[in-house]
Amino acid sequence: MIRKISYKFGTAFSAGEWNINGGGSRFTAGTRAPIAMAKKLPLLRKAGVTHLEFHDTELPPDQTKKFRKLLDKEGLKTGMVTANLFRRREFINGAYDSPDPKVRKMAIDISKRYLAAGINDLDAETYVYWVGTAGFDHEFAKDHVTHIKYIVDALNQLVEFGLEQFGEDQMIPILIEPKPNEPRNYMYGGTVGDALALISMMDPKLAPWVGINPEQAHSTMAGLSYSLDLSMALAAGKLGHIHLNDQSRPAFDQDYAFGDTDPLGCFAAVWTLKKNNYNGMIGIDVQPYGTDTGDQYAESVARTIRNFKRFVACCDRIDDKKLAALQAKSDQAGVADLVAKALTGARM
Amino acid sequence: MIRKISYKFGTAFSAGEWNINGGGSRFTAGTRAPIAMAKKLPLLRKAGVTHLEFHDTELPPDQTKKFRKLLDKEGLKTGMVTANLFRRREFINGAYDSPDPKVRKMAIDISKRYLAAGINDLDAETYVYWVGTAGFDHEFAKDHVTHIKYIVDALNQLVEFGLEQFGEDQMIPILIEPKPNEPRNYMYGGTVGDALALISMMDPKLAPWVGINPEQAHSTMAGLSYSLDLSMALAAGKLGHIHLNDQSRPAFDQDYAFGDTDPLGCFAAVWTLKKNNYNGMIGIDVQPYGTDTGDQYAESVARTIRNFKRFVACCDRIDDKKLAALQAKSDQAGVADLVAKALTGARM
Amino acid sequence: MIRKISYKFGTAFSAGEWNINGGGSRFTAGTRAPIAMAKKLPLLRKAGVTHLEFHDTELPPDQTKKFRKLLDKEGLKTGMVTANLFRRREFINGAYDSPDPKVRKMAIDISKRYLAAGINDLDAETYVYWVGTAGFDHEFAKDHVTHIKYIVDALNQLVEFGLEQFGEDQMIPILIEPKPNEPRNYMYGGTVGDALALISMMDPKLAPWVGINPEQAHSTMAGLSYSLDLSMALAAGKLGHIHLNDQSRPAFDQDYAFGDTDPLGCFAAVWTLKKNNYNGMIGIDVQPYGTDTGDQYAESVARTIRNFKRFVACCDRIDDKKLAALQAKSDQAGVADLVAKALTGARM
Amino acid sequence: MIRKISYKFGTAFSAGEWNINGGGSRFTAGTRAPIAMAKKLPLLRKAGVTHLEFHDTELPPDQTKKFRKLLDKEGLKTGMVTANLFRRREFINGAYDSPDPKVRKMAIDISKRYLAAGINDLDAETYVYWVGTAGFDHEFAKDHVTHIKYIVDALNQLVEFGLEQFGEDQMIPILIEPKPNEPRNYMYGGTVGDALALISMMDPKLAPWVGINPEQAHSTMAGLSYSLDLSMALAAGKLGHIHLNDQSRPAFDQDYAFGDTDPLGCFAAVWTLKKNNYNGMIGIDVQPYGTDTGDQYAESVARTIRNFKRFVACCDRIDDKKLAALQAKSDQAGVADLVAKALTGARM
Repeated sequence: MIRKISYKFGTAFSAGEWNINGGGSRFTAGTRAPIAMAKKLPLLRKAGVTHLEFHDTELPPDQTKKFRKLLDKEGLKTGMVTANLFRRREFINGAYDSPDPKVRKMAIDISKRYLAAGINDLDAETYVYWVGTAGFDHEFAKDHVTHIKYIVDALNQLVEFGLEQFGEDQMIPILIEPKPNEPRNYMYGGTVGDALALISMMDPKLAPWVGINPEQAHSTMAGLSYSLDLSMALAAGKLGHIHLNDQSRPAFDQDYAFGDTDPLGCFAAVWTLKKNNYNGMIGIDVQPYGTDTGDQYAESVARTIRNFKRFVACCDRIDDKKLAALQAKSDQAGVADLVAKALTGARM
Repeated sequence: MIRKISYKFGTAFSAGEWNINGGGSRFTAGTRAPIAMAKKLPLLRKAGVTHLEFHDTELPPDQTKKFRKLLDKEGLKTGMVTANLFRRREFINGAYDSPDPKVRKMAIDISKRYLAAGINDLDAETYVYWVGTAGFDHEFAKDHVTHIKYIVDALNQLVEFGLEQFGEDQMIPILIEPKPNEPRNYMYGGTVGDALALISMMDPKLAPWVGINPEQAHSTMAGLSYSLDLSMALAAGKLGHIHLNDQSRPAFDQDYAFGDTDPLGCFAAVWTLKKNNYNGMIGIDVQPYGTDTGDQYAESVARTIRNFKRFVACCDRIDDKKLAALQAKSDQAGVADLVAKALTGARM
Repeated sequence: MIRKISYKFGTAFSAGEWNINGGGSRFTAGTRAPIAMAKKLPLLRKAGVTHLEFHDTELPPDQTKKFRKLLDKEGLKTGMVTANLFRRREFINGAYDSPDPKVRKMAIDISKRYLAAGINDLDAETYVYWVGTAGFDHEFAKDHVTHIKYIVDALNQLVEFGLEQFGEDQMIPILIEPKPNEPRNYMYGGTVGDALALISMMDPKLAPWVGINPEQAHSTMAGLSYSLDLSMALAAGKLGHIHLNDQSRPAFDQDYAFGDTDPLGCFAAVWTLKKNNYNGMIGIDVQPYGTDTGDQYAESVARTIRNFKRFVACCDRIDDKKLAALQAKSDQAGVADLVAKALTGARM
Repeated sequence: MIRKISYKFGTAFSAGEWNINGGGSRFTAGTRAPIAMAKKLPLLRKAGVTHLEFHDTELPPDQTKKFRKLLDKEGLKTGMVTANLFRRREFINGAYDSPDPKVRKMAIDISKRYLAAGINDLDAETYVYWVGTAGFDHEFAKDHVTHIKYIVDALNQLVEFGLEQFGEDQMIPILIEPKPNEPRNYMYGGTVGDALALISMMDPKLAPWVGINPEQAHSTMAGLSYSLDLSMALAAGKLGHIHLNDQSRPAFDQDYAFGDTDPLGCFAAVWTLKKNNYNGMIGIDVQPYGTDTGDQYAESVARTIRNFKRFVACCDRIDDKKLAALQAKSDQAGVADLVAKALTGARM
């Protein structure tokens, strides 16, 4: 099993400090002053978050031990940790998949170090590898076959290190977070299917430790169904974490609050998780609206949790037996009507 | 004004007989026997339809007078009529925009004849020009500037004919229905903006008679917002008819029932129409699911009307003053929360 | 290895008889009379095709033995065979993944029977499972986890049957052909990654017999890079066949001739195959333009082969060492310039 | 006519200083030190640029007169000027379309001031209104009809001011630059069609001064054809400027060098401009690759110009009469073959 810790459905929510930021984008100005990470903790807790997520850039491994006390004091735990393999200058053309062997080694070293810090100092539940800058802008920029294998090799090394250092008892799952594009034109490990395929290329002794962290916006950016992507990971026994947010269609990475733009997709995601007895963390990866002001730092996080609970309530409006009967006879018209009523709470 | 007849909001629904078909697609088999048009009338009426829509291929102009009696008997009227400028072999590379002057003439002649039949025999409210095969598959297939002007010229001729034949009192609005692609790679008049632009190139004396028929799926196929497209047509005083259905994202033309896949977009469309006092026909352009059986011929039409009414009920859950206040202070987070509650009927 | 027969690069081309059809689409009329399959053979051969591809609907298993003589006479062989799991009425809501156990059994039986006919009568090189109607239109139409597992189960059964009947010597590879949507809103096994993931869920003793048939248009419909998809299959040792055609962007399934709309993607695909010493069949899956006349039945096939050879010539314009050096130092600007010159043959 | 100055085709190239930047994105680090604008001038000139483009944020109106001397010294002129209506904090929810009347006034005032500076101090050829933050993230964030009219009103005011201040002789064209999304989920004036429609809603006495600046990446982001968008602007007599770059498909705004990813679309754009005797500025709006180093500040600009000239050379390979004959008989297969040969320079 790719998760070690279980929760009653919808009681454990994690979010990274980057969910609360000063705003601004490539084209727009920020609308809030950036605030220190320590000050974000109570804001996140009040929004309903129980666990934090960390990059090694905002919480470097030499500060994890000390910061842990702050977390304990605030009553927060650590959902997942992840080494930042994208914002460092060295990783501009990939990290695990860089053409430069020194850069590949650096990426693996950083990952090992933060995996260790996450286990030792933060009791992190999972470690995530977001594909980041892996991939290419120009189609001829890399010999893809070779570079895909570099990633598989790096994952093997990371798991091997973890097992050697910590043994099976302490070791935590390594989860690939796929994304199809942005910042690169095309990214390796771009979809949940691609990430599962990478795992299937790993050393069979190490592969059981690697799973997936599917993100709503990233699936939608490839025109794929998030609930189907969740289901693929579940069918493969590889659903280790989730990142909820929202995205309207294939376009720039929007990271809107869960439920803001695609309520049917979000409702279906909650239903899929519930139906399949997902008992893991409900991870959140959102951005504030560009219009959110200084009073609304954590509003996207809070709304995500509220909308999640609203969709759980919509699930409760569904008569499971009736739905199963409609599915069994391939009556999509009946399904669509039943779901429209459950979503809107219409009596008619 | 681009509409002549007005209705209380949500009381007049129109649909073409093609909304009820035998099913099947390029890749799949039909699941129902095709049925004769006369037999479709009671099915459509029972589904909630008050008005029919006709192509000249399913109801040729030499049969309109006779068929009118059937309509009267069934208590149905005619919402709009349209000459089929796509399924005839001559129109394989465009109709009004064909490189062949004989084909262009044929397209205009057919249009005139069916406009006349619609006015004379069916008391049609509007005449629609769906862009159909206008456009190209290969980028170099046409000199686009020339061919765009052919369309403008054809629209001028059609309006001129209508005014000469029927005068301003009897003449009905001509409405462009945009679609970005399928069957062609790129289509002329592909978006609501493009269609408004075509009108702006017309003879200023004739242009006031031409408006737009925006379709939900067609806007979504270009990654555009249907409520914004409706608003563009409204701002220009050109919203003459609407075609409701649903589409998940840029992909093949799905024509699902309104509300089946993008409930927020559909809710926003209803809110936009209501807010702007749209008092025209609610046109429906849907396909059955491939899984609909012989008992479900008109289920997509009926569900469209039910979902339309469900979204009207969601509109009633919105406190207009509160929404206006949030909009005025650019509080999108507040708007999103208010709308999520209105859509789901959540108390929280 | 997922292929048993090898060819000098670019000497073996296969196409199905459906590549030559009467034209027409959901919206448009055909422009050519449909012609009998036997008459298509010389047309395909003259276009440059060396091998045919067959569905069991156009060449039923009880006719394969007899038809083989026609093929031999024409000097043509069989590239791949595939049971049609989409156009039969039973498969409207999926075949291997149907909710109805009788339909699932029927799909598996048909597949076994055609695999056997392909091996016994046609000396087919590969057997293809195109996902077809697998999947759903409405997000809640199926419990995806269960239905994904049905597909894995069916693939296990098919390979097991093949090995039992024919042994490892005679057995041929089974290849999944992914497609993200159309005819369904979302399809199971929608991407190359998804298909590789399905294989990874199979019985490890049977999985080595299953590979991938990536199609250019299908990758592009999900906004993915075809050369990256080819590379994923190559890295996994699973590239068993290819289907070349062209598609401009996520939209309806266009099946244009290879090179017609995305020359850079097509050039990159040829380069990827060549660079990785692909020695398999060059499969073609195209449609005629809607404007192709009775003299142009096989023009899309012939142009695909011509364009393939043009891109091979473009590959020859690339100085491999120079490209490798640019790649090694992450110089995408240099790569882009070198590729633009190779594509256009510009001296500057 | 929407342009006042004409050039021999392909001899005048303009680019903004932002085409040369330090790199970096929402997710990635910069790879070059940012450099001062004055130092960029020789880099741009050496890359082939003859004219500069300016925002009022990088060259404020109180510095234009002084900076002009630097331009003169470097032998550069001014292609277009534009007030930055997106990166200022006030414009976070739109500028001309802000719900706040003070913000709308500020946006118009800034625009007037920079239009004046452009005419008085820089001899700018055109003034551009890029829609920037106009639009919304959440569908219910604005009453679109009202806010669209605000934009029309602002354009009227800007032209009125220009004519009053400068008269018809000195006044320069105002050009709308459409973009469908990013930074907003949906933008007003999102497509060339939408922008033409906004112009059609203007005061008929002022509208002749407003035209379009179509950008390749922006058309592609909506899945539209850039050469068709150019043609729409040409047919309407509204093509005032162009922004060349490249974009692979609907995704984040890529701004790759012209020709880097969609060579057929770029070739078609050059052919469309040449065929229609476009004699205006060739504007460039590109970003460096994330991998470009300190030696490659202006490489995307230089490659854009080189690729432009390569596509002009491809145009010269086309036999115009032959192409016209193929178009006249709707022979797309013939067109596709002719174009593939012209693009690749293949002899076969």
